[in-house]
Order: sequence, then C-alpha cells, then structure tokens
Amino acid sequence: MVNRKIYIVDTTLRDGEQTAGVVFANKEKVRIARMLDEIGVDQIECGIPVMGGDEKEAIKEICRLGLRCSVMAWNRAVVRDIQESIDCGVDAVAISISTSDIHIKYKLQTSREWVLENMVKAVEYAKSQGVYISVNAEDASRTDMDFLIQFAKLAKEAGANRLRYCDTIGILDPFTTYNNVKTLIDSVGIDVEMHTHNDFGMATANALAGVKAGANYVGVTVNGLGERAGNAALEEVVMALKILYGIDLNFKTERFRELSEYVAMASNRELPAWKAIVGTNMFAHESGIHADGALKNPLTYEVFKPEDVGLERQIVIGKHSGTAAIKKKFAEYGVNLSEEDAAAILEKVRATAVELKRSLFDKELIFIYEEYLEKRERGEL
Amino acid sequence: MVNRKIYIVDTTLRDGEQTAGVVFANKEKVRIARMLDEIGVDQIECGIPVMGGDEKEAIKEICRLGLRCSVMAWNRAVVRDIQESIDCGVDAVAISISTSDIHIKYKLQTSREWVLENMVKAVEYAKSQGVYISVNAEDASRTDMDFLIQFAKLAKEAGANRLRYCDTIGILDPFTTYNNVKTLIDSVGIDVEMHTHNDFGMATANALAGVKAGANYVGVTVNGLGERAGNAALEEVVMALKILYGIDLNFKTERFRELSEYVAMASNRELPAWKAIVGTNMFAHESGIHADGALKNPLTYEVFKPEDVGLERQIVIGKHSGTAAIKKKFAEYGVNLSEEDAAAILEKVRATAVELKRSLFDKELIFIYEEYLEKRERGEL
Repeated sequence: MVNRKIYIVDTTLRDGEQTAGVVFANKEKVRIARMLDEIGVDQIECGIPVMGGDEKEAIKEICRLGLRCSVMAWNRAVVRDIQESIDCGVDAVAISISTSDIHIKYKLQTSREWVLENMVKAVEYAKSQGVYISVNAEDASRTDMDFLIQFAKLAKEAGANRLRYCDTIGILDPFTTYNNVKTLIDSVGIDVEMHTHNDFGMATANALAGVKAGANYVGVTVNGLGERAGNAALEEVVMALKILYGIDLNFKTERFRELSEYVAMASNRELPAWKAIVGTNMFAHESGIHADGALKNPLTYEVFKPEDVGLERQIVIGKHSGTAAIKKKFAEYGVNLSEEDAAAILEKVRATAVELKRSLFDKELIFIYEEYLEKRERGEL
Repeated sequence: MVNRKIYIVDTTLRDGEQTAGVVFANKEKVRIARMLDEIGVDQIECGIPVMGGDEKEAIKEICRLGLRCSVMAWNRAVVRDIQESIDCGVDAVAISISTSDIHIKYKLQTSREWVLENMVKAVEYAKSQGVYISVNAEDASRTDMDFLIQFAKLAKEAGANRLRYCDTIGILDPFTTYNNVKTLIDSVGIDVEMHTHNDFGMATANALAGVKAGANYVGVTVNGLGERAGNAALEEVVMALKILYGIDLNFKTERFRELSEYVAMASNRELPAWKAIVGTNMFAHESGIHADGALKNPLTYEVFKPEDVGLERQIVIGKHSGTAAIKKKFAEYGVNLSEEDAAAILEKVRATAVELKRSLFDKELIFIYEEYLEKRERGEL
C-alpha cells in the first residue's frame, strides 16, 4: 500500500480512559504503558496533566519509566495546559482545538479567527519548550476543507510536527476519508495522524484509508476502547497493515491477547469472544463445513495463525458440528470412531446442544460416548 | 451514493447461529424472524433444512408465519438439500459452494469443473421448483476473478437471481472490495449481495463499499453475530446508509436497541456498552468537553438522535466530568449550584471516581453534596 514508515500512537490511557465509566488506577496505567512500549507502539498519549492530582502523578510516573517510545500528553490550546505537560516531563504534546463551524459556534461560542490565534499561540509556546507537537483538529471530518488547510498551514508554520485529523464523531467512510486526507496532505505537506471513531463500525477501515491517502501516523486504543463506540483498535490496525498490506511494523503481536485481556480487566469492560483479532472465537470453529476445512488445512478458514496474536485454535462441538470434528475430537481422547459411530454420536451431540442451548464440554462428549457404548452393548441401537 | 433500491438480507438465524457456542431455541427463532420482518428486513435466511430435526421444524414454522419478507434457507449445491428447503415452504434458496482454489483443493478436494457442474445442477433444480435463487460464491474474495466471472455467468444462465459475494474469512478492505465487485458486476450484469466478515474489523465498511460498486443486496446479522469475529451488523449498515449516504430504507430503526437486546440474550452474548449504533455508551457523555458540548447542542458530539435507535442520552458523572455537567445534573435534582459550589463538588467527584475506579451514581452525587453542605455549615471549607 505504501512505502513510508507508519507510526502507531496509542491513546488507551487518554481517549480510552475518557470512555464513560472507565477509570484506570495509576498502577494499571504504568503497566499498560510498559506493555505498549514492549509490544512496539511508537508513542503513547498518556493523559491530561491539567486535570492535576492522580492524573498528573500517573503521567509523571510514566515519564520516569524511561520508555523506548515517545510519551505524549493531551492539552487544550492553552499555555497553562502545556506548561503542566512540560512539568510532567513528556517529550511530546498534543494540542487540541475544534475546527468545525458547528463546534466553533455551539461549543466554543467563538470564531474561526479565535481558533487560529489560540492554536498558533499554544504551538509557539510548546515549540519554545522544545517538545514534539501534534496539533489536533477536533471534528476535522466536519470542517470546511479550505479552513482546515489554512489551519494546518498555520500550525506547520508555527512549528507543529504533525496534524491529527480527528473524525471526532465517527461519520467518515473510507472513500471520503481518502479524498479528504489526500487533499489535506497535497495542500499542506504535513505529517498526518488518523484519529477515527467507530460510531458506524468503520474506525479501522477509515484509519487505513487515511494511511492509503498518505497519513503516516495512526491513533489507536487497545480493544478500540474510547468515547461512545470507541476508537480504531490497535490490534486491528497493526494486523491489517501486516496481513492485508504486507506492512510489518515489527510489533510483538503474539502479546496482543495478553494486552487486550489486561486492558479489558483494568477498564472493567469484558472482552467479547467475537472481538476482531483477539477474541477467543477468532479461531473457534464449530460448523461442520468450517471445522472440516480448518482441520484439513487451517488456511481455508484462517488468514493468520492463532499464535500470531496469542490465541489457540479450538474445535467447538455443538449443534452445527459435523462428523469430521467429532472424529478428530475423539481421536484426541484416544478413541478412533468409525463413520457409523461418529454419525450416531453426532446425532446425540446435536440434540443435546439444542436442549442445553450451547456447545458441549469435553466431559459431556465422553458421557455421550459412554451412553452410546452401553446402548450398543445392550443391543438397543 | 446510489439511486437503486438496496435490499437487506438478514442471516442472524443461519450465519449468526453458526457462531461457535450459539444455539437459538425454536421459540427464539420465531420471535427474531417476526421482529426482523416488522422492523423492515427484506429477506431472512433462517437456517439449513438438511440438518433436519429442530432446525427444519423452526424453518417450517417461520414459513407458516406469513411474513411480509422473503424467507430463504441455506443449502450446499446438492439437490437433496434444496429438496429439503422446498419441503419447508421457503420462497428462496441460497445455494453455496466454494470458488477459491484453496477451498477447492484443500476442503472440497476437487476441481473447478466439478464446482461449476454441481452449482449448475443445483441451480437448475431449484429453478424447476420455482423459488428465488441466490448462488453463494464461498471464499469469493480469494477467488481468481476470471473464474468468478465464469462462475457467475453460468449461475445466471442456469437461472440464479443473484450472486452472494462472500468475503468468507474477512480479508477485504473497502478499496479492494469496490474494485472486485465493480469488475464482477460490469462483466456479468447480475444482482450481487455483499456478505462480509469482521476479522479485521471492516465488515460494515466492506459491505458499504460493495454497495458503492453496484451491489444491491447486503447480508447482515443483528449485532454482527456470526462465525469468528462475526458479520456486518444490521444496525450499522442500515444507519450508515441512512445517515451517511441519505439512503433511507424505511426501517423501524427506533426498535434496533430492542432487537439487539433480544438477540444478545437469546444468543447468550452480552451486548457491549460500546457496540456501534446500539450500545448504551453511544449517547453517554462523561468527559468535560464532550458533555459540555452535548449539553449546549447535541449535534456537537452526536450524529443522530438517541431515540432514532431506541436509546437515551446519558450524562455520566465521573473522573473526566466538568462543571457544566455537574451543574446540569444538580439542576435535575432541583439544586442550582454556583460556579464555586460546582467546582468544589467536581473536585470531590473526581477523587471519588478515582478511588472507586468507576463513574458515580445519582445517589453518590447527592451524598457528596450533603457532605459539602455540612462542611460548609461547620465552616470547614
């Protein structure tokens, strides 16, 4: 897709924690920061220093870890905010301000001129402090393109290192994303970070469309945690880049499941079995046709290996099972079933799964087999 | 995006139930079928008659409901399967066969010629029975395009009404989808249904990319239930078409939350708070900036109304709250806080949320307020 280096910016600790109801303990924040660093993230956005208290403490602690990756803090376009960030010891600041008319009129209740002026003032101050600067155009996806270009040019002139293109309310589709980001980059010539939300289920596709258009930073969160329906998920973006586009960012992807489980527990948000990339169902095959295929050659129904993301393949026995999976399962128990035995057991398996409204455990399969043997001995079959 | 009529094909009862571990009771299947029909789905794929037993019974029962929508059953490209479907009384059949070389070689262990021959035989038989026919090209996204075109042309000649383009293992991105589907439709001139999986989190974006390329049917499931990471979600596709593209399919979208809750319970798969479109977090605002914006004008952080999908707006009070939300919340309790009171209470709210690692209930806010009043009376502030 592209030949440039792509950088991954994780904002689990900032946008992720902004999810209604989610609070990380500082101990958890430090652990998540360490794991993100070890796994390969290029930059972590770890909080909002101006909130003070515990929030600021966590950021300081993360800065003291001496991580390989860059550590960034989030700020409004306000000098005091940035001063608080510098105090914490971060090497990078995100400076955020809304650029859409709807935000400027109803939320900020000000003018485009005010936005430009305050953004420039904040960037110039950050620049004087020698930190890396991302300027975040909040609600960029609803912003008049001419104004966004003007905003980005001024940000660049004032010393910003990149522009964060925020699809704040998640209304983009990949084709619009591509066109918008391409226009922006062609007009301004600035590094762009994609920051996409999942309100219509398209956060990952939109982030990747931005990369295709020339963006070289992708903002993500673990498990897609974030405001409303969340953000583009770290594990989806990294694996899609690797598997679908051949762009290997050299992440320790085999730790993705471990990281996802930890963030799920820390955020008190259970990881669904069907979560893309890291859910346990990713490599669970039950239906006869799928299990048969996966047993013959996993590539028929899998596009990467379970161990690539820290998962295991499971053949689930239940209502939709076929004889191939039954025979395979019993072979694991040391029992080689004939085709006839397998068909008889399958019938009982299906009836039991329907009765119990779920798939069956190993123990239950063994019970069914024992009952079958008994019946056969008694000549009741 | 397009001027054609777009049809929604729901396969919650077939591909949804194929999810490892999921079994619907027949009573639940009937209720889900009724709800899908009432809400506006054009066709429901409701099961696999050749499985027999309860599965076949449920399909017969759904056929007897006399629904407005078309009722389809799933089949292998085998005459016996189709005969079982006809017996149930469906008006439409899906005839599925793999078209990719990897599936043909390793799963079917046969040849392209065998695939074409069996597909044509099955379609001709179904045609002779007078039912609507979808031919499903399984693993279409990994199929050689020339062979897929040949397959689709033969299907059309044999009497198929449409081709289901299956991204069976979810490896497409929207740009590849668009190109593939456009090539297929331009070459064959056949109705195409998108059937996309969410392995990289792009099922919805890919389904919509197919529509953009000319597909006029979209296969979906409620909540995106389905094999591995699931399918494109009904609620995401319908709302994206309506809100992002202005294509209103006249669905009773205000019943989406109710439908999603029912399917979540019946499938024993909890609906996450952050589920796109129907999760409770979609309209839950906690962070100071977002809550402030949403209170001033919901359009700043929401792109459709909560009641459009059967949800309610919530202002959540927690670690990221600001004074605007605190004042609004207390105004609901009949208390008008001064700016100073609100700031003092906010400080206590944040500390409590950090301590408890969660957002706060109404009752807790009232406790905090009472303690604040007591302290003020005692002159301890």
